[in-house]
Amino acid sequence: MEKLKNDLLLRTALGQEVERIPVWVMRQAGRILPEYREVRAKAGSFIGLATHPEMAAEVTIQPVTRFGVDAAIIFSDILVVPEAMGLPYVMEEQKGPVFPKVIRSLADLAQIRDAEPEEDLKYVLDAIKIVKKELAGKVPLIGFAGAPFTIFCYMVEGKGSKTFSQAKKMMYAEPDLAHALLQKITNSTISYLKAQVAAGANLIQVFDSWAGILSPTQYSEFSTPYLKQICDAVTEVPVTLFAKGAFFARKEMASLNCATIGLDWNMDIAESRALVGTKTLQGNLDPCALYGDFKTVEAETKKMIQQFGTQRYIANLGHGVYPDIHPDKVACFVDTVQNYK
Amino acid sequence: MEKLKNDLLLRTALGQEVERIPVWVMRQAGRILPEYREVRAKAGSFIGLATHPEMAAEVTIQPVTRFGVDAAIIFSDILVVPEAMGLPYVMEEQKGPVFPKVIRSLADLAQIRDAEPEEDLKYVLDAIKIVKKELAGKVPLIGFAGAPFTIFCYMVEGKGSKTFSQAKKMMYAEPDLAHALLQKITNSTISYLKAQVAAGANLIQVFDSWAGILSPTQYSEFSTPYLKQICDAVTEVPVTLFAKGAFFARKEMASLNCATIGLDWNMDIAESRALVGTKTLQGNLDPCALYGDFKTVEAETKKMIQQFGTQRYIANLGHGVYPDIHPDKVACFVDTVQNYK
Repeated sequence: MEKLKNDLLLRTALGQEVERIPVWVMRQAGRILPEYREVRAKAGSFIGLATHPEMAAEVTIQPVTRFGVDAAIIFSDILVVPEAMGLPYVMEEQKGPVFPKVIRSLADLAQIRDAEPEEDLKYVLDAIKIVKKELAGKVPLIGFAGAPFTIFCYMVEGKGSKTFSQAKKMMYAEPDLAHALLQKITNSTISYLKAQVAAGANLIQVFDSWAGILSPTQYSEFSTPYLKQICDAVTEVPVTLFAKGAFFARKEMASLNCATIGLDWNMDIAESRALVGTKTLQGNLDPCALYGDFKTVEAETKKMIQQFGTQRYIANLGHGVYPDIHPDKVACFVDTVQNYK
Repeated sequence: MEKLKNDLLLRTALGQEVERIPVWVMRQAGRILPEYREVRAKAGSFIGLATHPEMAAEVTIQPVTRFGVDAAIIFSDILVVPEAMGLPYVMEEQKGPVFPKVIRSLADLAQIRDAEPEEDLKYVLDAIKIVKKELAGKVPLIGFAGAPFTIFCYMVEGKGSKTFSQAKKMMYAEPDLAHALLQKITNSTISYLKAQVAAGANLIQVFDSWAGILSPTQYSEFSTPYLKQICDAVTEVPVTLFAKGAFFARKEMASLNCATIGLDWNMDIAESRALVGTKTLQGNLDPCALYGDFKTVEAETKKMIQQFGTQRYIANLGHGVYPDIHPDKVACFVDTVQNYK
């Protein structure tokens, strides 16, 4: 097994005792950093950046250099999976991702294919290999994918939405079609995640970003079984499940073969500990807390740690950092965690 | 006290035994109804309709006529309060409400005033009086307002948002300013709700639509104290609190002087019963369930009722009905509740 100079993240995920709390920040490689914006400008577009392995690797490493976080996370997007399945997307200014074609029928479903990661997503795997080489064991690298349910939302709805009512409509009106699509997404996601691990990812995080729009019973039917397949298949490295808004599913998720459960800032820490048993927890500072002054950031971070404790805990925000947060506030957050006694 | 032919809603809210479950539907007066769209077209705009008492009264009564629901709810908008405080909004196609001026400083705060309902919101009070006359005691009329925190979100952010990060920023960066604005909103809201009751509203619902973006501790600091002031002030009629997404605050809200707690479809029913004690519950069918066929709507509605039971329970959706739902599905929902044995 690879020798890492800093393996706090992995030991914590595996439930081993650690000398201090590991910390990283969702969206740490991104618009908050001027050095990111520079590379992004050279690439010309978000997708241009994500598909260019050298540049994707460069922005992946930037926050490790600047903040000294305890992990890198590969710069990419959850929507590369539907694209690899034959459903491309474009990024529209102000609107976010838009899919010109969507899946609404069996005929639509027949049009898409299983992703072949070594071909369709080679650019991500190449970026992972470059990052691993450049990091040279400094910190672990996190790979990731969207949860099948969240990817399903985009493939059916065709764009972001507050309600994803078209995606949910399929679950009530054509549940068999919904399950068939979810299974196809799951198959592609598993082979993609396994390819990321083979390329060098040390830990996998699955983002169920739209989990919060489902009722508890629908979550159990349309999301958990596919997360279970992923957890049962990706056994080479620890897996983190982060289902934003799915407070109602914490116990159910903790019953899966995952190492860590991510919490958003709505979720009470003590209650979550009680619900998930011995799994490691990750999270969950309100991203807006970083709008406060340095004293506030430090106080809020310490308050959070006091509730989580220092073991079986990976410090992070409860969601991705907002693009207008000053990087020094992120540094303050990271330093507060790393200096916590 | 006014004699109502159907007072199921009020008796249920007050915890009295009832012979069957009362039912109404959030956004029952709205775009799902062709007869609404006709009046809306005549009015020229949403705001035109809301500010025209005769027309607002007409669309308020339409769902009572069509569906036989057990309550009317006055057709209006939560944003009439900031408008009455001197912060007008416009409705932009696709974008929703937009405030040309926003509150970001003490100087901005000094620009706004306390709403004078009898003048600034006379059109709503007039509509209530017309509805009451036309209903002639057939069913109760629900008045409403936004919760101070939700109104605060719009007044600071200036438009709808997934994160309301500018509004939340003020809570971390300038908490005193945030509280001063919240108090001003609360004062105006209380006088507005009392005026609605004086005009004839039989029950008040307070919508905390953006509650779900707050952490539990922020909710306790920035929302609950203002809801408490409202509940303590509006004592003439039963009050319903509906805080979408604030699953973490159910127990806290149940400690206030309200009669009913509204649930969204994420909230587990048995767990909610345990948390809120003897308060009445309202909700919580997933609005997307109405995309299913009639058999599905009936089955999902019955499944919901079996969990709530038939007492201390007001049937409703877990959020407003979506505009592309067929009215016959709403009828099926209402009929299933009213015929439940």
